[in-house]
Amino acid sequence: MVEETTPETQNDPHDEDAYVLAPRLLSSIIFALETQDQAQLVALMEPLHAADIADILEQVNAFDRRRIIELYGRELDGEILSEIDDGIREEVIALMRPEVLADAVRDLDSDDVVDLIEDLEEGAQETILASLEDADRVAVEQSLSYPEFSAGRLMQREVVMGPEHWTVGQAIDYMREAEGLPEDFYHMVITDPLLHPIGHVTLGKILGAPRAQKLNDILEPGFRTFRVDESESDVAYAFNQYHMISAPVVDEDDRLIGVITIDDAMNVLDEEHEEDILRLAGVGEGTLTDRVFDTVKQRLPWLGVNLLTAIMASLVIAQFEGTITALVALAVLMPIVASMGGNAGTQALTVAVRAIATRDLTGANVWRVIRREVLVGFVNGLIFAVIMGVVGLVWFGSLALGGVIAVAMVINLVVAGLAGIGVPVVLERIGVDPALASGAFVTTVTDIVGFFAFLGLAATFLL
Amino acid sequence: MVEETTPETQNDPHDEDAYVLAPRLLSSIIFALETQDQAQLVALMEPLHAADIADILEQVNAFDRRRIIELYGRELDGEILSEIDDGIREEVIALMRPEVLADAVRDLDSDDVVDLIEDLEEGAQETILASLEDADRVAVEQSLSYPEFSAGRLMQREVVMGPEHWTVGQAIDYMREAEGLPEDFYHMVITDPLLHPIGHVTLGKILGAPRAQKLNDILEPGFRTFRVDESESDVAYAFNQYHMISAPVVDEDDRLIGVITIDDAMNVLDEEHEEDILRLAGVGEGTLTDRVFDTVKQRLPWLGVNLLTAIMASLVIAQFEGTITALVALAVLMPIVASMGGNAGTQALTVAVRAIATRDLTGANVWRVIRREVLVGFVNGLIFAVIMGVVGLVWFGSLALGGVIAVAMVINLVVAGLAGIGVPVVLERIGVDPALASGAFVTTVTDIVGFFAFLGLAATFLL
Repeated sequence: MVEETTPETQNDPHDEDAYVLAPRLLSSIIFALETQDQAQLVALMEPLHAADIADILEQVNAFDRRRIIELYGRELDGEILSEIDDGIREEVIALMRPEVLADAVRDLDSDDVVDLIEDLEEGAQETILASLEDADRVAVEQSLSYPEFSAGRLMQREVVMGPEHWTVGQAIDYMREAEGLPEDFYHMVITDPLLHPIGHVTLGKILGAPRAQKLNDILEPGFRTFRVDESESDVAYAFNQYHMISAPVVDEDDRLIGVITIDDAMNVLDEEHEEDILRLAGVGEGTLTDRVFDTVKQRLPWLGVNLLTAIMASLVIAQFEGTITALVALAVLMPIVASMGGNAGTQALTVAVRAIATRDLTGANVWRVIRREVLVGFVNGLIFAVIMGVVGLVWFGSLALGGVIAVAMVINLVVAGLAGIGVPVVLERIGVDPALASGAFVTTVTDIVGFFAFLGLAATFLL
Repeated sequence: MVEETTPETQNDPHDEDAYVLAPRLLSSIIFALETQDQAQLVALMEPLHAADIADILEQVNAFDRRRIIELYGRELDGEILSEIDDGIREEVIALMRPEVLADAVRDLDSDDVVDLIEDLEEGAQETILASLEDADRVAVEQSLSYPEFSAGRLMQREVVMGPEHWTVGQAIDYMREAEGLPEDFYHMVITDPLLHPIGHVTLGKILGAPRAQKLNDILEPGFRTFRVDESESDVAYAFNQYHMISAPVVDEDDRLIGVITIDDAMNVLDEEHEEDILRLAGVGEGTLTDRVFDTVKQRLPWLGVNLLTAIMASLVIAQFEGTITALVALAVLMPIVASMGGNAGTQALTVAVRAIATRDLTGANVWRVIRREVLVGFVNGLIFAVIMGVVGLVWFGSLALGGVIAVAMVINLVVAGLAGIGVPVVLERIGVDPALASGAFVTTVTDIVGFFAFLGLAATFLL
């Protein structure tokens, strides 16, 4: 059945805002709520993809969210729950009547149920587990027994497999007769009699080959499996690096126990990108649906660290109180040196953090990259030294002041390049996520070096 | 055929550095180069995935790169070229003998050839185009005629399709007889007689259904097509949002002309993430393989913008030279207020930029989010106001100075929240990429407000 798209969600390629939920749709939904018109609400939301319904629930306020859930009732299925932001998932689940919730999760694949409940509080977890059939509940509980962020949590347990001696014809006959093939699968996994996977065949190859063709002769090259305790981040990296579409998961005895598909890997990649970008900005985790209190809590620690580093920089300035009193122009110019260093350091560190995340920065090239960053800092330092030297000269009429700020600029930009690459590399070596902590260290270094170089040179040569 | 993994590349889940190229492998390769031992080099590199070979070429220096390419010779295939970083691709292609290059690209799908050559200079493009067979060259040239970053550039032209009246049996017979099915395909696209796609069937459904089953009755729900001129960013968003695996591309008459698969969409998502994270740090584009000169060029503009904003902040300080001379403690403390504002602003702006990129921040919730950010800024401002008030009092023994820095802190953190969300939203409305320009605006605002609030209050109440 082809799903109808409503006028509101049709994507017009010439529209700048294709894929942004149409405000008109939202107002129609609010209107249906105001008039308590259930039929109209269902008519508006039914044609939407679960991900879009989840977006609507995220974008309205808590009051409207409750009204939508109450009025939409039974139609809220498991797929919608899977799509909802962690920030409000618990709120939504708490609003659903138990029998609706039970219906909703019963149709999900085991990996989706795991994804849905792993971050919930125990009470909410129990409610959902209790609503599953016995076999499904055992499968979900088994998955939850694997460590968080492991391949075991990502995989689905429904696997299409066949023995190594099968032909294409036998594989097709088997699939045609099998009950409940998974919703999405892309390979048949071939195993030996002990259930060790020895390769897999794409469905395309099975469809394109004669019935008599041995599966063993059309296995995909570059076959890989994942151990159940392997980290999800390694899994995601491998999917991306090797353009994989699905891969079997094995237990410690190398026996087939599940399969991971590309959509799960894509999710992990997406989350890791998000984490990197937020951590670089010192936000920890954070979504638009978090409440003020949670957001304050997320942002406080980083601001606290920043306060400490800012105070350390101030202590450097305090050493030069006499110099500043004698020449107040220094107070005017000193933030420029520190700020340029901070920015150059952030540039170098962002490139380094990314390169570490994509595993492009390794022992093999780290010295070459460090040399490049120092050189880049030196060249940029020279360029801005000339500019600031001229600014200092023109603004305050002192060639010596211009010279001091110029030299301080070169020093700080070289240090910024060195710290920008060195800090994340060292943090990674000692097992700290460089995205999380590099920023604070690098700007501390550039602030302190910036103030010290500028004010120290001024104290020595200008007074 | 199952590809053998060499001991060096075997992934051990218990190894922290699984998937980082083993340094031992690299040294063996360098040793083979030193001894000009071609057989050994091929033995080392042949078992590797193309993506890993590309990584090796990226991680060695230019001298070794040239030696590898010369010694590895014929084995360097098109897939490796596709995987190589833009930064050195041109260098590698220039090093390859023309007949090797021709061999290398001939086996690629049309979309991979397009991806390979679209960023090359015209000379290198011609060389590669000339080495293709006529039909392939026409296909590639046609793809290149679509705008950059459009669906047309992403799609492959090889499509598996069938008419709407077909049964499963007919589809299987067709695929079994078809010459040259694409390497990777996941659906059969169903079209009407005018080649308008009306739906698609997963290969899994085809394999699971009886031969007599009408394809029309097992079409996938939620079927979507892309217009050839749609932006690749919209395509990637839709793949991610709706968990798509492949989708047809149509021309302006809605006729089927190609298909986009998830690996292409994943690539785009990856590149956009990379772009966002680098732009937020003011790096533009940048990879580890760029040379010093290119890197300087990428980073100069942002540093230049930062210099201007830093000078503007200095102009604010200059207004208070007299105040600072009278009370030099102000010079010591003023960077703290500015720095805290800058950090709080960056936090808010990063969340906002991400939310705009994932289309979670829309007209429906923007006011709620602005209110939240202002509140968060106010609460964090109060907390750090108390801390800094005490620090000011203890350090400089002045209750009034502590009070001034406390009030300035609250003002600047509220402004930071407001600017952090307001600037990216406004930039997005006027069509500027918020990731690119927000940082400069926000820190300018927080610097200026920070210095002005602190020094202005001090001038009013302390002197």
